[in-house]
Amino acid sequence: MPTTTREIQLAQRPHGEPTDDDFRLAEVELTDPGPDEILVRNLVMSVDPYMRGRMNDVKSYVPPFQLGAPLEGGAVGEVVASNVEGVEPGAHVLHQLGWREHAIVGQSAFQPVDTNLAPPSAYLGVLGMPGLTAYVGLLDIAQLREGDIVFVSGAAGAVGSTVGQIAKQRGHRVIGSAGSGEKVAFLRDELGFDAAFNYRDGRVADLLAEAAPDGIDVYFDNVGGEHLEAAIGALSQNGRAALCGAISVYNATEPEPGPRNMTLMVGKRLTLRGFIVSDHWDRMGAFAQEVGGWLRDGRIHYRETVVEGLDQAPRAFIGLLRGENTGKMVVKV
Amino acid sequence: MPTTTREIQLAQRPHGEPTDDDFRLAEVELTDPGPDEILVRNLVMSVDPYMRGRMNDVKSYVPPFQLGAPLEGGAVGEVVASNVEGVEPGAHVLHQLGWREHAIVGQSAFQPVDTNLAPPSAYLGVLGMPGLTAYVGLLDIAQLREGDIVFVSGAAGAVGSTVGQIAKQRGHRVIGSAGSGEKVAFLRDELGFDAAFNYRDGRVADLLAEAAPDGIDVYFDNVGGEHLEAAIGALSQNGRAALCGAISVYNATEPEPGPRNMTLMVGKRLTLRGFIVSDHWDRMGAFAQEVGGWLRDGRIHYRETVVEGLDQAPRAFIGLLRGENTGKMVVKV
Repeated sequence: MPTTTREIQLAQRPHGEPTDDDFRLAEVELTDPGPDEILVRNLVMSVDPYMRGRMNDVKSYVPPFQLGAPLEGGAVGEVVASNVEGVEPGAHVLHQLGWREHAIVGQSAFQPVDTNLAPPSAYLGVLGMPGLTAYVGLLDIAQLREGDIVFVSGAAGAVGSTVGQIAKQRGHRVIGSAGSGEKVAFLRDELGFDAAFNYRDGRVADLLAEAAPDGIDVYFDNVGGEHLEAAIGALSQNGRAALCGAISVYNATEPEPGPRNMTLMVGKRLTLRGFIVSDHWDRMGAFAQEVGGWLRDGRIHYRETVVEGLDQAPRAFIGLLRGENTGKMVVKV
Repeated sequence: MPTTTREIQLAQRPHGEPTDDDFRLAEVELTDPGPDEILVRNLVMSVDPYMRGRMNDVKSYVPPFQLGAPLEGGAVGEVVASNVEGVEPGAHVLHQLGWREHAIVGQSAFQPVDTNLAPPSAYLGVLGMPGLTAYVGLLDIAQLREGDIVFVSGAAGAVGSTVGQIAKQRGHRVIGSAGSGEKVAFLRDELGFDAAFNYRDGRVADLLAEAAPDGIDVYFDNVGGEHLEAAIGALSQNGRAALCGAISVYNATEPEPGPRNMTLMVGKRLTLRGFIVSDHWDRMGAFAQEVGGWLRDGRIHYRETVVEGLDQAPRAFIGLLRGENTGKMVVKV
């Protein structure tokens, strides 16, 4: 058993786009797990766009990260020592203390995962929080209905690629946007999207109008900004948008312009609704059954962008905000 | 029986704020009602903000007004001649062919009103379309829940003043905004609002923060623009906004800036929903019973701004968009 371990701390709060200097790799003492705790050796950890918000010192739905403390995020690891009954060393668990090599986790703060069904990293993506986000946002928040045409932005990301595939499995026409030609090809050729465009190729409103000449009924927003305005313009009567995130503005240091077409919401009877996946854990069972089944049957696919080494986690996170990933971005610890 | 009658026609489509030149008073032939039609002498007619949209040649939820044709809008009149069984001359009816002295109305396009219960003009305001708009928007669209703090903009208007009073009758704390000190006094002193402010006195966000230090749970939007941004900022977690109209931008000739704080919708799980009252006629019974009862019992109040003479209808409409009315703006024909 080592007596020290390594972790990534928040060295200073980023201003705009995060830089290497905002993070610090630290060597810290490794203690034994206390009563009702386990010691986990992390295998793979998640970097997610929403973490950018927690790096600011503002009140939000989750408290901000603390300076000098390790960052947090989803991780899957192997139990090294256990003081929890029924949990044996060698078991794999999902928990929220990523960004470190070892974590001491209380008994209510982890759950076992079945690595025979899917590799550990899948529980950080398609079978985990991003997958549930896609499921809840599309079905519960946007209230997907038969015949709806679905548009999802950030469609090559962990959430967006699952949104599009759930909609396809349910028989919908699906349009996606992404930030490179390679990603667009991935959406069309591997994931079966009906149409996809690279939002850097022109005005989003024009590109969307071309990809969805009959308009859209549901918009799943991962991007915000110009995408949201374009979607409000394209939504048909009684259209609905699930607002999941706004990666286009996470690094903004000034307020970004808002949609200039909000008045369309009245005449078109549109609904925009923001949501946070953590309000919807009760849907995990239905999600795991439906999406897990499709995954087992090979009906849906996922990609990962894997970065090697805990010390590379800040670069992975910075790259994520730049859109350098296709599918789920994970770090092998 | 006269052989001619007068009507207000749309002479040209307004650019920005309407002017007198956009309207024309015309003398036209008066014909007899055909089978299953009645001839009505209009007594009072409605001018409503939404009519501004119909003056533009754009596709929307109602077709645009036609050039050279009479304008349309709610009116109450007296039946002069009737070819509809059960409808006698002298009866009072509500219909949609205002902006003219006489109207020929088909049997499915009018409904009798009881002028013993309330004067004719009330059926254009508190007991009519604006009242139902308030009722549906607050209860069905914004899903008013026990304990909610309610903010309504354009609160001294026909819709807004009813929104505030319905919320008060149901026991809520209510905040209103209006465009003059006199209107603010009306909200506080006559309608019983808990707080009210003149939006011309400063930044709406600041004025709202002062009037609602604990935030708001429901926003009823008649104004759009800066008001909507301020409300998004003030809404508490799980807050809801019913988007009814946006009088601040109806005369705009360029797209107006949108709310710069849309990303707050995610973390606060906000819902914004646009609606059109004509989707909700099925709620007329419940509305008439509840709000009609309060009116009969003297528990809610209404004011009218009455303009005399059909020829003054364009001035009334222009004044409405400038906020010159308190309560419902009507024209005595």
